[in-house]
Amino acid sequence: YLRGKLTVRDVRFPTSLEQHGSDAMVALSLFMSHFPLPMHTDPDYSVAYVVIETDQGMQGYGLTFTVGRGTEIVVCAVEALSALVVGKSLEEIVSDFRGFYRLLTSDGQMRWIGPEKGVIQLATAAVLNAVWDLWARSEGKPLWKLLVEMDPRKLISCIDFRYITDALTEEEALGTSLDQMLKEGYPAYTTSCAWLGYSDQLLKQLCTDALNDGWTKFKVKVGADLKDDIRRCSLIRQMIGAHNTLMIDANQRWDVGEAITWVTRLAEYKPLWIEEPTSPDDILGHAAISKCHNRVMFKQFLQASALQFVQIDSCRLGSVNENLAVLLMAHKFKVPVCPHAGGVGLCELVQHLILFDYISVSASLDNRMCEFVDHLHQHFRSPVVIQNAHYMPPKDPGYSCEMLESSVQTHQYPQGQVWKKLQ
Amino acid sequence: YLRGKLTVRDVRFPTSLEQHGSDAMVALSLFMSHFPLPMHTDPDYSVAYVVIETDQGMQGYGLTFTVGRGTEIVVCAVEALSALVVGKSLEEIVSDFRGFYRLLTSDGQMRWIGPEKGVIQLATAAVLNAVWDLWARSEGKPLWKLLVEMDPRKLISCIDFRYITDALTEEEALGTSLDQMLKEGYPAYTTSCAWLGYSDQLLKQLCTDALNDGWTKFKVKVGADLKDDIRRCSLIRQMIGAHNTLMIDANQRWDVGEAITWVTRLAEYKPLWIEEPTSPDDILGHAAISKCHNRVMFKQFLQASALQFVQIDSCRLGSVNENLAVLLMAHKFKVPVCPHAGGVGLCELVQHLILFDYISVSASLDNRMCEFVDHLHQHFRSPVVIQNAHYMPPKDPGYSCEMLESSVQTHQYPQGQVWKKLQ
Repeated sequence: YLRGKLTVRDVRFPTSLEQHGSDAMVALSLFMSHFPLPMHTDPDYSVAYVVIETDQGMQGYGLTFTVGRGTEIVVCAVEALSALVVGKSLEEIVSDFRGFYRLLTSDGQMRWIGPEKGVIQLATAAVLNAVWDLWARSEGKPLWKLLVEMDPRKLISCIDFRYITDALTEEEALGTSLDQMLKEGYPAYTTSCAWLGYSDQLLKQLCTDALNDGWTKFKVKVGADLKDDIRRCSLIRQMIGAHNTLMIDANQRWDVGEAITWVTRLAEYKPLWIEEPTSPDDILGHAAISKCHNRVMFKQFLQASALQFVQIDSCRLGSVNENLAVLLMAHKFKVPVCPHAGGVGLCELVQHLILFDYISVSASLDNRMCEFVDHLHQHFRSPVVIQNAHYMPPKDPGYSCEMLESSVQTHQYPQGQVWKKLQ
Repeated sequence: YLRGKLTVRDVRFPTSLEQHGSDAMVALSLFMSHFPLPMHTDPDYSVAYVVIETDQGMQGYGLTFTVGRGTEIVVCAVEALSALVVGKSLEEIVSDFRGFYRLLTSDGQMRWIGPEKGVIQLATAAVLNAVWDLWARSEGKPLWKLLVEMDPRKLISCIDFRYITDALTEEEALGTSLDQMLKEGYPAYTTSCAWLGYSDQLLKQLCTDALNDGWTKFKVKVGADLKDDIRRCSLIRQMIGAHNTLMIDANQRWDVGEAITWVTRLAEYKPLWIEEPTSPDDILGHAAISKCHNRVMFKQFLQASALQFVQIDSCRLGSVNENLAVLLMAHKFKVPVCPHAGGVGLCELVQHLILFDYISVSASLDNRMCEFVDHLHQHFRSPVVIQNAHYMPPKDPGYSCEMLESSVQTHQYPQGQVWKKLQ
C-alpha cells in the first residue's frame, strides 16, 4: 500500500538570471502598456516534484514542469489530488489504471476547475508520472521497456478513450503492431543554440560546437522582433548549411494574421515547421505543430488536418496514460510524433515515450525527432545520455524522474539555499 | 490606491446533502471501476470570494463559482494574482484595462499553468469581477448601466483582441450600435424544476408551480440513464405543453457517437438545444451550445458554425472584459446569446452582461433568454429580482457580487459553523 505520505515540493531554478530558456514568453510581457513589468519576466525553470512511498519503503518519483510563479498553485493541486492516491496499493491502481486515471480527472467536484486542462492537468501529470515511475521500478525496468514488453490489452487498458472514440476506438488501438527492437538511439534535435537574447557571437559559437558534436537539426526561438528574427535565422541557416534542418518556435506570440506575415518572411530560411504560432486553443488557426493540453485537443487537430507534426509533452498531458492515447491517434492519422522536451526533466521523461513509439507503434524514423536542450540534467539521478545527436535508451529502472535530494533541497522555493541567497 | 489587502475566502454550501445542483457530473463518477467512489459525488456549490479595498475604504466584491473540492486551489491562484492588483489605483487600472487584463493573463511565468483556462482563468475572473464591481460602485451605478453608458471607445479598450482579430477587429467592434432602452426585464428560463435525482412527484409539483409563476422555458438535466431521461422528458413535455420551450443539458457526459444516439431518441420531445453533449474542448464534436473557457474557443465554435447559441459565463471567462469580446463576436456571427447561470452568484452577475447585450449590442430578444436557478440567492446583498419569468434590471451600484458577511463566515471552508457541524 502507498503510505500515508505523498510529498510534493516546489523546486525552482533561478534560470531568469541567465539567458537560457528565454523565448517569446518574455516578449509577451513587453506589450504596449504603462504598467510596470513584473519583476521577473524571464522564466525560472521549476518543477512540482512528487515522491510517493509504499509501505515496503519503495519510492516513486514524479514531476511536472513549470516556469516559476504559480508553481505553488500546482503544488496545492497535487495536495488536493493526493487523497485519491494515498492508501491504495500499486496493484490496485495498475489493475484498473483507466479507472484510476478517470478517478483523478473526473472527480465530481474537482473536474469543474479543469477539466483536463491547466493547473489540475499539470498536477495530474505529476502524480501519475510518480505512479508510472513506481510501477516501472517495481518491475525492475526502465519505463520504456515496461511499456514495450507489456501485453497490448494491458497497455490499452491504461488509456481513457472518453471523447476520442470518434477518432480511435479500443479495437483499432489493439490492432497496432508491437515489434522491432532498437539499436542506435532515437534521433534528437537541439534547442540549446538559439534562444532569444543570445548574442550573435554566442550563437555562432554554440552552432559550431553543436555541429562538431554531430547535431543536424536545430530549433530557433522567434517572435519578439521580425528584423531580429530574420538576422538570426539567416545566420543559423548559413552556419548549418542547406542540408541540415531548421525549425522555428514562436511560443504563441501571434494573431493568425501576424503569423502568416511573419512566417512568409522567414520562409526563405526553409524551416521544417513553425511551432505555436498562435493561441494553443486555436484549432482553426491552422498550427503546423502544437503543444496541446489533452487528447481531445490533439484529436481535433488531427481530424482537422491542422497539424503536420504531433508534439507530445510528458508533463502537460495526463502522464503516460494520455500520451499513449495520443501516440496511437497520431499513428492512425499517419502524422509523425516529435516530442517537446527541454524544461526541467522533460527530456528525461519523454525519451521513454518516444522509444515506445518507435519500437511498438510507428517503427519509423521518417521526419521524427525528439527535442533536446542541454540544461539542468545534472540534477537528475539518471540523466539522459546523448550520443551523436541521439537519445540512448535509458537502462535504470523507472521513469527517470528522480532528482538528487541535494538539488531538491538547495532549490526548494522559497526556503532553499539558492533562493535565500537571492532574497 | 487599492490597499495592501485583497482578501480571498473559500466559501462552500453543503448542497450535496440535498438533491439540488445534481447533474451528469454526478453520474460521471459512477463509471465501471472497482474504485470506491469519492466521498462526495454531489457538488457542494462554492465560491472563491474576493474583497478588495481602496485606501479611501471603498470595497469591491468578486467571486468565481466552483463545486466544492478544489476551491482551495482557486483561492491559492487568487493569492498568486493579488500581487498584480494590490498597490494600483482604480484609475490606473481602468485607464488601461486591456493592459491590466493582459498583465493578469500573460504574466511571463504564470501563463504556463494556463494560459487562460482552468484554475488560473477562474481566479482571474474572481479578481477582475471585484475590480469591475469596484468601478461600478465608484460611479454609483449598477454594472450594466456603467457598460451601457460608457463611451464605445472606452468600452472597446477593455477588451483583449489577441488571438481573435481574424474573427473580429477593434474597428468592427466599434461599429456596433449602442442604442435602445429597457422596460420590462430580460427573459429567463428555469433550470430549477428538473435536476437528476428529483422524484417524478417533486418534478410535477415544481413544473406546476413554475407554470403558475409565468415560466415558459424549462431546462432538463440528462445523461445518466437513457430510459430515465425519456421518462422525464416525456413527463415535462406533457406538463408544459407543446407551446412552451424545453432544453436539455448533458454536462459533457457523452462521446460524439453516444451523443448522436441519445439525442436522436430524445428528439421527439423537441428540445430547443442540447447543451454540452461532449468534451468542452471538442470544437469539431459539433456542440449546438457550449460553455467555453475563453474567447479563443468561442471564436472557433463561431467560425466553424458549430454552435447555434452562445452560452457566456460570468465566472469562467475572464470577467466582463472577455465577455464583452464574446458578446461582440456573437453579434457579428448573428448567433443569439443565452447565458449560463445558476451556481452561486452566476445569476446575480450575468444579468448585468445580458442587459448590456440587449440594450447596446443585439437589440433583439429572438431566441434569447437567460438561465435562472432559484438557489442560494438569499446569501447576496442585492439578489436578482425575477418578475413574470423576467430578470428585472438591478438598481444597486456595482456588479451584485457582494455576499452577506454572515453567510460568508458561516460557510467559510473548513472553519465555518456549517462545515464544523458536518465534520
